[in-house]
Amino acid sequence: MSTLTRFSVQPLSTMTRRLADVASARREPDLVIQGARVLSTYSERFLDGREVWISGGRIAAVKPAGSYRGGSAKLYDARGGIIAPGLVDPHIHIESSMVTACAYAEAALLNGTTTIFCDSHEIGNVMDVAGVEAMLEDARQAPLSIFLTVPSTVPATTPDLETAGGDLTPDKIAALFDKWPEAVALGEKMDFVPVAMGDERSHAILAAALGRGRPVSGHVYGREFVAAYAASGVTDTHEAIDRGIADDLLEAGVWIFLRGGPPTTPWHSLPQAIKTITELGASHKRVAVCTDDRDAEDLLAFGLDWVTREAVKYGMRPEEAWAMGSLHGATRFGMEGEIGGLGGGRRADLVLLSDDLTPVSTWYGGKLVVDSKKITPILDEALSKPYRYPDAAYHTVKLPKNLKLTPDLPTETVVAHTIKTELPGITLGHVTVTLEPANDWQAHFDKHDLCFVTVVERHGKSAGNVAHGLLNGFGLRQGAVASSVGHDSHNIIVAGTNAADMQVALDAIEEKQGGVCVVMDGKVTAMVPLPIAGLLSDKRVHQVADEVKALKLEWEKAGCTIAYMGFNLIPLSVIPEIRITDKGLVLVPEMVISPLFEKA
Amino acid sequence: MSTLTRFSVQPLSTMTRRLADVASARREPDLVIQGARVLSTYSERFLDGREVWISGGRIAAVKPAGSYRGGSAKLYDARGGIIAPGLVDPHIHIESSMVTACAYAEAALLNGTTTIFCDSHEIGNVMDVAGVEAMLEDARQAPLSIFLTVPSTVPATTPDLETAGGDLTPDKIAALFDKWPEAVALGEKMDFVPVAMGDERSHAILAAALGRGRPVSGHVYGREFVAAYAASGVTDTHEAIDRGIADDLLEAGVWIFLRGGPPTTPWHSLPQAIKTITELGASHKRVAVCTDDRDAEDLLAFGLDWVTREAVKYGMRPEEAWAMGSLHGATRFGMEGEIGGLGGGRRADLVLLSDDLTPVSTWYGGKLVVDSKKITPILDEALSKPYRYPDAAYHTVKLPKNLKLTPDLPTETVVAHTIKTELPGITLGHVTVTLEPANDWQAHFDKHDLCFVTVVERHGKSAGNVAHGLLNGFGLRQGAVASSVGHDSHNIIVAGTNAADMQVALDAIEEKQGGVCVVMDGKVTAMVPLPIAGLLSDKRVHQVADEVKALKLEWEKAGCTIAYMGFNLIPLSVIPEIRITDKGLVLVPEMVISPLFEKA
Repeated sequence: MSTLTRFSVQPLSTMTRRLADVASARREPDLVIQGARVLSTYSERFLDGREVWISGGRIAAVKPAGSYRGGSAKLYDARGGIIAPGLVDPHIHIESSMVTACAYAEAALLNGTTTIFCDSHEIGNVMDVAGVEAMLEDARQAPLSIFLTVPSTVPATTPDLETAGGDLTPDKIAALFDKWPEAVALGEKMDFVPVAMGDERSHAILAAALGRGRPVSGHVYGREFVAAYAASGVTDTHEAIDRGIADDLLEAGVWIFLRGGPPTTPWHSLPQAIKTITELGASHKRVAVCTDDRDAEDLLAFGLDWVTREAVKYGMRPEEAWAMGSLHGATRFGMEGEIGGLGGGRRADLVLLSDDLTPVSTWYGGKLVVDSKKITPILDEALSKPYRYPDAAYHTVKLPKNLKLTPDLPTETVVAHTIKTELPGITLGHVTVTLEPANDWQAHFDKHDLCFVTVVERHGKSAGNVAHGLLNGFGLRQGAVASSVGHDSHNIIVAGTNAADMQVALDAIEEKQGGVCVVMDGKVTAMVPLPIAGLLSDKRVHQVADEVKALKLEWEKAGCTIAYMGFNLIPLSVIPEIRITDKGLVLVPEMVISPLFEKA
Repeated sequence: MSTLTRFSVQPLSTMTRRLADVASARREPDLVIQGARVLSTYSERFLDGREVWISGGRIAAVKPAGSYRGGSAKLYDARGGIIAPGLVDPHIHIESSMVTACAYAEAALLNGTTTIFCDSHEIGNVMDVAGVEAMLEDARQAPLSIFLTVPSTVPATTPDLETAGGDLTPDKIAALFDKWPEAVALGEKMDFVPVAMGDERSHAILAAALGRGRPVSGHVYGREFVAAYAASGVTDTHEAIDRGIADDLLEAGVWIFLRGGPPTTPWHSLPQAIKTITELGASHKRVAVCTDDRDAEDLLAFGLDWVTREAVKYGMRPEEAWAMGSLHGATRFGMEGEIGGLGGGRRADLVLLSDDLTPVSTWYGGKLVVDSKKITPILDEALSKPYRYPDAAYHTVKLPKNLKLTPDLPTETVVAHTIKTELPGITLGHVTVTLEPANDWQAHFDKHDLCFVTVVERHGKSAGNVAHGLLNGFGLRQGAVASSVGHDSHNIIVAGTNAADMQVALDAIEEKQGGVCVVMDGKVTAMVPLPIAGLLSDKRVHQVADEVKALKLEWEKAGCTIAYMGFNLIPLSVIPEIRITDKGLVLVPEMVISPLFEKA
């Protein structure tokens, strides 16, 4: 186990005398950071000429420059820079980065993020409570402050529509709250329509959180749902996509987390939603910024620091934007006495910034973990001793033999329900295509721009469920692509032009017990192995980022029109219009299973 | 027991389905308030044309005007007014108003205040845990949301310096937190010098709160103490008296409660402290307003609504000021999901305001309790069934017989250590006066502007401690004044020109088991009886206000230069320069007992 964790800093309750002694100059600080301007997230001002006195991993005081007269404290010369509190990300999914919590920490600290609130929704869907708890153990041993918003909507739909690995009932959720103090809130309640409609199970889950004094995080689209959703006790959201719904939500008492997504993704809603402040005049005091989802490569390049700079780009003062990136998330979760600002007694989670708010150095609990944009030996050592997930987590891809991965060629004219992939890759069109008899599938593919898509149940819970479908416009011209990350039940999704390459892809995933891969001519040309729950690599973040980068290159070379993260969403049976799960094609508006072919 | 209490509204966890139904218009609201502008404390804007849908005492939704199409809901026509959340007072002492929690509620609701955070420090000083718990029971039965900040500094000093009725040790404080969920924070930690110096008991008390995740409220003077005090875990203060210390505290991570005091008191620090915002440019997001202390008369005329209007007068926008009066206090105590704004699911604690932010009508938990500045029958009924304090609370003035209330006349020249009373009545000067032999005390009084002041121990804990002193410049020309409210130990303080009138005053207090009175020529000319713990009346607030008003008239007629509230502070042995307790004269800088006379 790493020696640098959240618990390396003792609770404030045990340290007040020591800190009072240091603040009163009766005891030497451990470290004094000198010569910097300070970015105050409390007053939203820059303060010139300050120095930060640190003891036992906490801030004893921020004093006027020159207060420290010398002695045994280490000194750090921060001249020319800005000292600010470490960033606090109020809503992320570690699994999206396909790394462990420990590995995630490296990227976070490089980006000046020292605390995250994660919803371990994906591993919950695969491994139920055991998965959530394994990730909590991982989080406890990581060199980062990681709190949990308990997955609230597992499975995303019902057993009629798909086979999931997890089923987080109200009782299980209640037990997680009672067992894990770091379970500070209920995670995004994604089934906003059932919530608004008064669904019993949905509200029992809300009650499990609210009855324990834990707030509820949200996920909602559609202004017509805001009132009922807020009335149900939801008090934050990261899904405000424009100024209108952002404004409605803010007025309904909901904290807004502006989500910045990298330019290559469809998740960059910040530029629109921020207009509730910049155009409609709302106060930003209940607005934070978040990242939500990042693959490993994007995590390094587009961290919360980048989102904070985007907030500046779209109209906030830098001091306001950094407060939205730190103090406001902390306040939302009732932790502003511990993190989010440079107040006395707070954790010494600090970042040294250049003038454009780019993180240069990071201190985590008073330890220098990133120095001049490079990790320090103490962090490197911590990252080299990660938590080992239980063996069961390494054996979650349970496939029957002799699967039939492609549908039979129709022998008469049929109407096929195809899944139309379109950028940005979130909603999928429901397009019917008339297939007249042909000699082979390739003739249909060429004529209608189609390829196979198959979902294979992998939790060992069915009698070998396999569902066949057709992607329309996906662009794959040969070979196959496959993924064990198939939201939200995370069965295996394979697309291809032929059964042989699809089988190679499936075999590769089975062998590694998870992954995303590209197959050409019977060979795996790129793969990100994900042996933990079929979701996470056990490598460090830069290695995974390199693998992801290589995967994206082959993915593009294969002609795929939507990126692998969009591909992973194809089974997500709650987003319009048509999806495919292990049970078959799901027509989302009707929430029914459709056959692939119907008589013409 | 009243039927209108904090508990009349069910927990949100049990009501989400109902509220979702109402917000979705599948179920009728109980009440719709129509036609008002809304003051949003979330966005700090006025919103035109809204209506508020209420169900089960909670806000189901704020909708565009005209959304409600008619049905079984009661309608309230609020045209021309402003609907805002009820005020939240983050720091008050009920005892200062000399009324019970239940009686306090009437004044609070008339002023648009629906939640208070009280520090029951005074009754703790008299009755220890039993007093705090009795007031908590009183609070639970009051028609007002009353939360406790647990008294942290009882007694104020040590048994060497005075005899107190209470001794709230770290263990007792911990037990209060564990027993009473409404004990949400540690009350103002007044011994800021010992805290800054690392005193063991003081920090054990801080640890009892911090270790339970409860925040700590503060009380500090002097910029030199801010760093050590904040490092000790204190995260709010209501004692910032100017922009400099307010700014320091804000930057040290401390929430600022701007205290508005009525013009007749020395407590009006808001106009100076607010300059951290209006002149120094700090954000107001961590700034609230509070009342702290109010006698019953001032409570009615200078409530938190008045303080909020003062914030406007001194530079805030009305929307900002009202947020400082409601949402910000709620946020500071982690309760913004329940109170402080008009969000979905919140308690329907609302106020209808005129354009200048004067409360006109108040709803508490969805019930109309004040209508056009008059209380409604439902509130009147609730107020008529107050909590009955335990018998022990009615027997706290335990006096020996045959007390000697005045010092012997010196027979030779002596130097007397006199207590110089000066406006505004907080600090008291230490003035030595040479007394040459005289025929009677009156000669000294006339020559040096003196009168007697005597403190009598009343907790039955000593062998009849009586201490004699001399007030200098108090202005009392005949008769006596006396009080059983003698901060913080609340022994009996009597001032007078002759032993007979002083005895009459003391007898009156003993008979009523507490009170404040004026005696002239052997007769009580005015008295506020305070039979509960010698601190509280058991009458309703207007009656007590009338009694206080009459008392103030007689008090002034008697010539007293400082008001009775200032008089009550004369035994407060932590404020410079000289005070008197039951143990004698206390020289505050040295914290030692001084004799009254020394040889010349």
